[in-house]
Amino acid sequence: MNLFYQPGIPQGIHHLDVVESHHAVKVLRMRTGDSLKITDGQGQFYESRIEQADPGKCTFQILNARYIAPRKFSISLAIAPTKNMDRIEWFVEKAVEIGIEQIQFILCKNSERKSINLDRIQKIAVSALKQSGQCWLPKISDIKSFTESLHVTADQKFICYVDSSNPLHLKSLAEPNKNYWVLIGPEGDFRADELELAISNGFIKASLGPIRLRTETAALTACHTLNLINL
Amino acid sequence: MNLFYQPGIPQGIHHLDVVESHHAVKVLRMRTGDSLKITDGQGQFYESRIEQADPGKCTFQILNARYIAPRKFSISLAIAPTKNMDRIEWFVEKAVEIGIEQIQFILCKNSERKSINLDRIQKIAVSALKQSGQCWLPKISDIKSFTESLHVTADQKFICYVDSSNPLHLKSLAEPNKNYWVLIGPEGDFRADELELAISNGFIKASLGPIRLRTETAALTACHTLNLINL
Repeated sequence: MNLFYQPGIPQGIHHLDVVESHHAVKVLRMRTGDSLKITDGQGQFYESRIEQADPGKCTFQILNARYIAPRKFSISLAIAPTKNMDRIEWFVEKAVEIGIEQIQFILCKNSERKSINLDRIQKIAVSALKQSGQCWLPKISDIKSFTESLHVTADQKFICYVDSSNPLHLKSLAEPNKNYWVLIGPEGDFRADELELAISNGFIKASLGPIRLRTETAALTACHTLNLINL
Repeated sequence: MNLFYQPGIPQGIHHLDVVESHHAVKVLRMRTGDSLKITDGQGQFYESRIEQADPGKCTFQILNARYIAPRKFSISLAIAPTKNMDRIEWFVEKAVEIGIEQIQFILCKNSERKSINLDRIQKIAVSALKQSGQCWLPKISDIKSFTESLHVTADQKFICYVDSSNPLHLKSLAEPNKNYWVLIGPEGDFRADELELAISNGFIKASLGPIRLRTETAALTACHTLNLINL
């Protein structure tokens, strides 16, 4: 059954926005009285019934609400956007599917891309959330400087960086049931001084294995590794 | 440094094919005498020197050969191609990056796609191999029937299938240093009789977690899980 996304329901909103309304009424041809499954992206699943199948403003009546608590751990990942935006959009879709709490875009010295279309990326995240039947929409934030991105609090903070003096894999460094922050560098990786700055800010250098991975592959690999050690 | 792909070097081929020659001479403007790093995709890395920088047939002289043994484990994955070919091409690129030995495309009862462009997929695999600096090109095979795909030998054979009676995750079922075969179903998953047939052929039902994953996400997740337990 299709899952719809509509924030603000606890604050009294009882209609789908224009895009979701059009999808429900025009695309899926749903009618007044049909049942509608909705999430607000903040942990709530709603069973509802369509009151008015208006393609511009589909109103509904809540029949039942179910709250799903956040996970016992959280994955926050800061990543330098790739030159080719498709690769970052792909990463966002996959990360939302397998589970992530926060994505922060960062600007590094080797960054080839200095800006992103945050609105488009958030739409991709919402679509992945609905498609995978989840109820917690990750927080996705626009680009900030690498230096700013270091001022975060977490139980464990990692900077993924591959060099010969970096034998420890994220899998062996990360402990279960923690809040993680992970930094993923751009094509061309972090500069040595960025690495030092991160370490002096409490980040631990972590490897993702012997193979040279693309930025977006490294990010998904880190995300999946942290999900897996929490199984 | 760029890695080039040229099969058949042990059999006496000492020139790049027309595509790689063009890339080396026209795109990268490499010249006679420049050093060239090549893999044959069968475990060999070659240090060589360009003899003739011909954009149609770039000849080289081998200076040094280094053989990398195959991994102590192997991942063979059979997957039903998705309706949207981009998703399968994305999976192939990522699987080659993180490590896979064999990809077999299969036709299931719920398959929406009955054919693939194998040549295009193999080009993507070669490109990912070069980009990630590896020397073992996975074997990629054209679509065969689900039933045929069951006639394989491996230390551990898994069919990824999510239902309420399937609590065991691939992570806890798979043992390190084995040869694995993994079956990934189409959008709409395997049919019940396909699942039964696989089980009667020695496949073990494995879960990839509580979240509903897209076909290509499930495939990459399975591949990454098996790589990770072998770290």
